[in-house]
Amino acid sequence: MATRVETIENPTGWTDCPGFSCAATACDIRGTDKERLDLALLSGTGKLTAAGVFTTNDVCAAPVHLCREFLAVHSDRIGGIVVNSGNANACTGPGGMEDARAMAEVSTGACGVEGPFLVCSTGRIGRRLPMDKVLRGIRDAAGQLSTEPAAGRAAATAILTSDTRAKMATVRIHHGNKTFTVSGFAKGAGMIEPNMATMLAFLATDLEVSSDTLANVLRQATNRTFNRISIDGDMSTNDTVLLVANGASATLVDADASLLEAFASAVEQVCFVLADKIVADGEKITKVVELYVEGARDEISADKVARAIANSLLVKSSWYGSDPNWGRLLDAAGYARIGLIEDRVDCFYDDCPVLLAGVAQDENLALWKQIVQRRRFSIRLNLNLGDASVRLLTTDLSEAYVNFNKSE
Amino acid sequence: MATRVETIENPTGWTDCPGFSCAATACDIRGTDKERLDLALLSGTGKLTAAGVFTTNDVCAAPVHLCREFLAVHSDRIGGIVVNSGNANACTGPGGMEDARAMAEVSTGACGVEGPFLVCSTGRIGRRLPMDKVLRGIRDAAGQLSTEPAAGRAAATAILTSDTRAKMATVRIHHGNKTFTVSGFAKGAGMIEPNMATMLAFLATDLEVSSDTLANVLRQATNRTFNRISIDGDMSTNDTVLLVANGASATLVDADASLLEAFASAVEQVCFVLADKIVADGEKITKVVELYVEGARDEISADKVARAIANSLLVKSSWYGSDPNWGRLLDAAGYARIGLIEDRVDCFYDDCPVLLAGVAQDENLALWKQIVQRRRFSIRLNLNLGDASVRLLTTDLSEAYVNFNKSE
Repeated sequence: MATRVETIENPTGWTDCPGFSCAATACDIRGTDKERLDLALLSGTGKLTAAGVFTTNDVCAAPVHLCREFLAVHSDRIGGIVVNSGNANACTGPGGMEDARAMAEVSTGACGVEGPFLVCSTGRIGRRLPMDKVLRGIRDAAGQLSTEPAAGRAAATAILTSDTRAKMATVRIHHGNKTFTVSGFAKGAGMIEPNMATMLAFLATDLEVSSDTLANVLRQATNRTFNRISIDGDMSTNDTVLLVANGASATLVDADASLLEAFASAVEQVCFVLADKIVADGEKITKVVELYVEGARDEISADKVARAIANSLLVKSSWYGSDPNWGRLLDAAGYARIGLIEDRVDCFYDDCPVLLAGVAQDENLALWKQIVQRRRFSIRLNLNLGDASVRLLTTDLSEAYVNFNKSE
Repeated sequence: MATRVETIENPTGWTDCPGFSCAATACDIRGTDKERLDLALLSGTGKLTAAGVFTTNDVCAAPVHLCREFLAVHSDRIGGIVVNSGNANACTGPGGMEDARAMAEVSTGACGVEGPFLVCSTGRIGRRLPMDKVLRGIRDAAGQLSTEPAAGRAAATAILTSDTRAKMATVRIHHGNKTFTVSGFAKGAGMIEPNMATMLAFLATDLEVSSDTLANVLRQATNRTFNRISIDGDMSTNDTVLLVANGASATLVDADASLLEAFASAVEQVCFVLADKIVADGEKITKVVELYVEGARDEISADKVARAIANSLLVKSSWYGSDPNWGRLLDAAGYARIGLIEDRVDCFYDDCPVLLAGVAQDENLALWKQIVQRRRFSIRLNLNLGDASVRLLTTDLSEAYVNFNKSE
């Protein structure tokens, strides 16, 4: 049976996916803007199976603890997801856990569904949620759940913090004469480093998928996409990616190898597009850099080199200044200490040689300068030590980033 | 025998130490400023023993390779040290090695001493040195070697790059009725992270010390001082600390346990003062932060937590903005992933409680704000997991840093 995966134009988030509904409302969680959407409810018809991937930070927000607890027991039947922005409910102690539980319980009750609601929060760390506003917002939203595209877009907007735009992606799987969907939306902006980031992403599918398969597919997709981006090297307390299946298509994935492959590919594609949108909307960035480290002895050392470069303040500052400074790049690669051999290194800006066997190709200087002025360019570093490679998507560092983050 | 170690006021570098001479000259290595001192010669009477500690970057500058080669064979008799600023002679291939060797040979010849000269360079990566200017400068400087304080200060000035001031420290060891000296000077400014930094430091003593003992003493002092500072997390290709003894006091350290202890303490003290001066003169910093991580299970995990905090862009930006943002601090401590337990953590700004057992002491907010506005303050994080601790000296991150480093 022919199977094809296709990314659609103008995605609207979960409402692209049959059998899912969304609502968003303005609760004034920040206390500074009564009109701003800051709470979203996501739900669906049928039996919802779910899987999650979470921050590996020792310091986890209350909703992350709660999601882990719920998924350990109820991954084959959740009620939906409730998300707020403006307050991370992190470092809030036992009271914060009670708040997260109350958000889940009130959501389940207000939506009249079976199974617990997963909870996500993003925003400022260390402050208790204004629970009266939040619970009122949940009850309001529950009455507005809708399958219309506008509701999907509103939910994608309500979860934003310092993002400048909503981030949505939808892929259709054409499998024989049937069509299935994987939809997603995300927020990012600051504290973005793999394993993951102040990053929330929510994926939905109308396929029927066991929670074990969801977990495997999501783990692999996340490792290849969201865990391969870095804006500022800071990993957050709240990072969460959730994948929910409602079985609305009445087509079971688990037993059909070719459909499973297509589904995994579709999930990865949605994650890939969302990860790219997160980086491109990084806090006060001016450039997106696709960094390829190739010819490493193994993937771990390729990753170390890529992260040393991507997290170097001196490298990021030079990108900001459109300075094709390969010296800082090579210096950073060197302090990853993977046994790099200087006179084997090739380096390219887009397709233009910068270093060949460690020797600078100075005659290309004018072209280097043109390339690093671009809004988006690639850097390819071949260590010529082995066959492993990684791709890491990263950004420059601007004065405006520092100014923006000097206080909250 | 009574032994006392005393740091003196108004140090002048190596010329504080009997039997050492310095010279500095302006060679126009940068090609932009004919008047700027950019080359220093350091030498001494008698038999000079030496030890060095170097960058652990996979990418090492030519002079680092040469110093290692010389010290492996000639650590019991070197001729002196030649240093240039303005060009790092890094990533310069076999030609760069020839240039470093020529600097050493011409220095030895011009000074008419026995033993090879150690060579250090600092500045831009990836460009060959203007050797005609450099060798002419070495010959000029050799004729001007002097034991006068002005010569010591000139040498300390000639090695600077983006530093705004010379950095010198001198300690006297009063041992019975005798006095010995350990003097040093250093440069830092950018690419400052432990293991080490674009950091050069040169120490001298008039004690007689075997090169093995020098190596042990220097290794320990460096680990406790220069390897415990972080400005921007970038480790350079050229970092070098050298310690030279001339035996002018005719007093052998090795066999005298109490003198050895005093000597080690004096070397550490000089390194401590120089490390502090390097951080306080970090590129475009506005604040110095003394970070103490205590109560860790072991020193390695204490160090991981301290570095995660010190290298977090979000934490550094908040210090710059005088925002007492303990949430970002705890988030960074968490992603060091040493098994931190949130509700055990105590945190203090200077002596003011911020977190006690993970609970924010919000009533102190006004005082926190006062403290983080200071030009220098301390942060003390007690993990309450064990007995290990570290101190790391670090800085904020300013918009001006990004602007300063956006091009060279």
